[in-house]
Amino acid sequence: MPLRIGQEVQAVLRGTGVIPKGFSFSAINAGIKSREYKGLDLGLIACSTDAVLSGVFTRNLVKAAPVIIGMEQVKKGSARAVLANAGNANACTGQMGIADARSMMEAVARELKVRSEEVVPMSTGTIGVSMPTERIIPEIPRLVKGLCADPGCFARAIMTTDTVPKMAARRVGEACVLGFAKGAGMIAPNMATTLAVVLTDALVDKQELDNIIKTSISSTFNAITIDGDMSTNDTLVALASGLVEADPLELRYAVNSVIEELALMIVKDGEGATKFVTVKVSGTSNDRDARIVAMAVANSLLVKTALFGADPNWGRIVAAVGYSGIPVEPRDIAVKIQGLDVVEGGVQSRSFTESSLHEALKGSKITIEIVAGPGQGRFTVWTTDLSYKYVEINAQYRT
Amino acid sequence: MPLRIGQEVQAVLRGTGVIPKGFSFSAINAGIKSREYKGLDLGLIACSTDAVLSGVFTRNLVKAAPVIIGMEQVKKGSARAVLANAGNANACTGQMGIADARSMMEAVARELKVRSEEVVPMSTGTIGVSMPTERIIPEIPRLVKGLCADPGCFARAIMTTDTVPKMAARRVGEACVLGFAKGAGMIAPNMATTLAVVLTDALVDKQELDNIIKTSISSTFNAITIDGDMSTNDTLVALASGLVEADPLELRYAVNSVIEELALMIVKDGEGATKFVTVKVSGTSNDRDARIVAMAVANSLLVKTALFGADPNWGRIVAAVGYSGIPVEPRDIAVKIQGLDVVEGGVQSRSFTESSLHEALKGSKITIEIVAGPGQGRFTVWTTDLSYKYVEINAQYRT
Repeated sequence: MPLRIGQEVQAVLRGTGVIPKGFSFSAINAGIKSREYKGLDLGLIACSTDAVLSGVFTRNLVKAAPVIIGMEQVKKGSARAVLANAGNANACTGQMGIADARSMMEAVARELKVRSEEVVPMSTGTIGVSMPTERIIPEIPRLVKGLCADPGCFARAIMTTDTVPKMAARRVGEACVLGFAKGAGMIAPNMATTLAVVLTDALVDKQELDNIIKTSISSTFNAITIDGDMSTNDTLVALASGLVEADPLELRYAVNSVIEELALMIVKDGEGATKFVTVKVSGTSNDRDARIVAMAVANSLLVKTALFGADPNWGRIVAAVGYSGIPVEPRDIAVKIQGLDVVEGGVQSRSFTESSLHEALKGSKITIEIVAGPGQGRFTVWTTDLSYKYVEINAQYRT
Repeated sequence: MPLRIGQEVQAVLRGTGVIPKGFSFSAINAGIKSREYKGLDLGLIACSTDAVLSGVFTRNLVKAAPVIIGMEQVKKGSARAVLANAGNANACTGQMGIADARSMMEAVARELKVRSEEVVPMSTGTIGVSMPTERIIPEIPRLVKGLCADPGCFARAIMTTDTVPKMAARRVGEACVLGFAKGAGMIAPNMATTLAVVLTDALVDKQELDNIIKTSISSTFNAITIDGDMSTNDTLVALASGLVEADPLELRYAVNSVIEELALMIVKDGEGATKFVTVKVSGTSNDRDARIVAMAVANSLLVKTALFGADPNWGRIVAAVGYSGIPVEPRDIAVKIQGLDVVEGGVQSRSFTESSLHEALKGSKITIEIVAGPGQGRFTVWTTDLSYKYVEINAQYRT
């Protein structure tokens, strides 16, 4: 029974809401982002049982150390804790990066009295810088001592350029599902994205949890794009403590719903975004082709900057459809923007006026509907516009 | 015998330089850009002989009317004139767009007393707007009357967001090669790009000219990218008047050199560009793979914005290599920037310092050298950074 987003997150943050049984949370400042930064940058989730573990990871061939370790852990399929940091990606750090991640896992395992391979590491931040383990490891006992029932601290500890913490929750009978994510740039097609953790107390086996996660990803985290760049660190893990019986179908629905909500939160908080843009493509021969067309439009710099400027330059959308690599017959293309007929039969609609489209594009939620042919394929992608602010955020010396 | 760029263009613009025999030039304001715009927006090149015609066109499936017509003309292989306009792309204009282009070709043919299918049309500008033929056609007699020996007017007539006209020339014994191009956004991999015209008075047959153009394109116009968007109008045509004997090998060299110079001019004048960036990739299994890796780096928004901000965030380059789709072994990756060792064996070089790379990135010409493995493949791509100005130019209401 999904509540409204705002209510749900507030309920969670107040600690009165839907917190899956068996999990506790902690976060501290461990001096990872910089010596000057005083906010949270190291978060921990502990589970009182051997949780069932599933996960999906970046398809980037350059994988961060925690991704390499996490992929092995997901194969084994159980975990007792998640240790996540912001400020350092531990990527392109070679064997030293692996050793650093393991030493952090061991420090947590010692305090929690679990096996170190059951502590799942996650990192986000600058690539190529060594983990400051000399600062982190002495702080781990304090991190573990802080474990409590408030998940909000974990959501804040994994933020980088995010402007708000990202959590979503659903009830499934007596059980529940709680998710965390961080954005907000380098959100790329072709994989999960960024860091995300989904917790549930539902009783579910490894195969079923894997199945639920993989199905959910394809229409959610794999359907969003901010800048088309694919991170070295993208990770989504799901842990199930198994303490509560739940209806399998309802659980699947709830997990999918939490993951979709997190994905949309990431887009809404995209770096410098001023508009939330939905690109719906239909009429291709299959869904895969529809996704490729939608991603071409969603990643086009010319489309994104036109949206930022409310420029009714629809030709850029049609041009992106044309170069997507998917066979289309230009005469078949139709485009609606905010419900207005813009392109019909590959040319400007008779009813089109520049001024009405310009007005319609001034809103902060934009929907572009593209019919690319007579086929049955369809896919929806969510993205943002491209603003001065995006350039500012990403041109900053060491963001 | 290539002269220096500045000298060459100045010589051409003074009308004292290398102008291929048989060609004359004209340009006027025909009210195409807007009623307010008073600059040149319609240009004409006429040839006194049946010129041999070659050309390459956008691979975008959504092709502008002049592209559809031009592709047929290139198959036939001869031309008497080129009619080019800025301000209106005549794309997504359906059968009406084809009819409009043909009526303009006929008006020119009537005045020049040639066949209308020998007038090659080229258009650049906004997509989806009807050609204002009612304003253009009455001006064509004045355009034809203005034909003279000064090619500079044609270079100016095809400018859109270009800040400078783009011409390049080379002598080939008694013959010569003269090229024109316009940039400056929507410069995409996978095809020529934008509008370009190459003229020569050398005697060359259709097959040889086709061959020269196709070979030249692959390492020049197909090796540049500003924003990864591929236009509906990209066209490069070459006309040879055949009035002068020339050495075939020298001709090939001269045409290639002119086309490369035009391609680099387009990058240097990329929309909002503050840096000219060379991305050299080697070590892949073949050149094609090297090109894909180089394009992934050159088109990465995170790399482009980091370059704009002189941010020594080299991890974004390695991340782009990793998601390019080409198999790479992370341990094999090496990166040099401005000659500084940045990445060796997939990790940060021992000699790397953030401050020295930050200083090196402040220059306006940046060279990134990437070794992606032990293979023999190599390719060089030219691109720009991504600045506030790019967003400003492209977010403007109807650019």
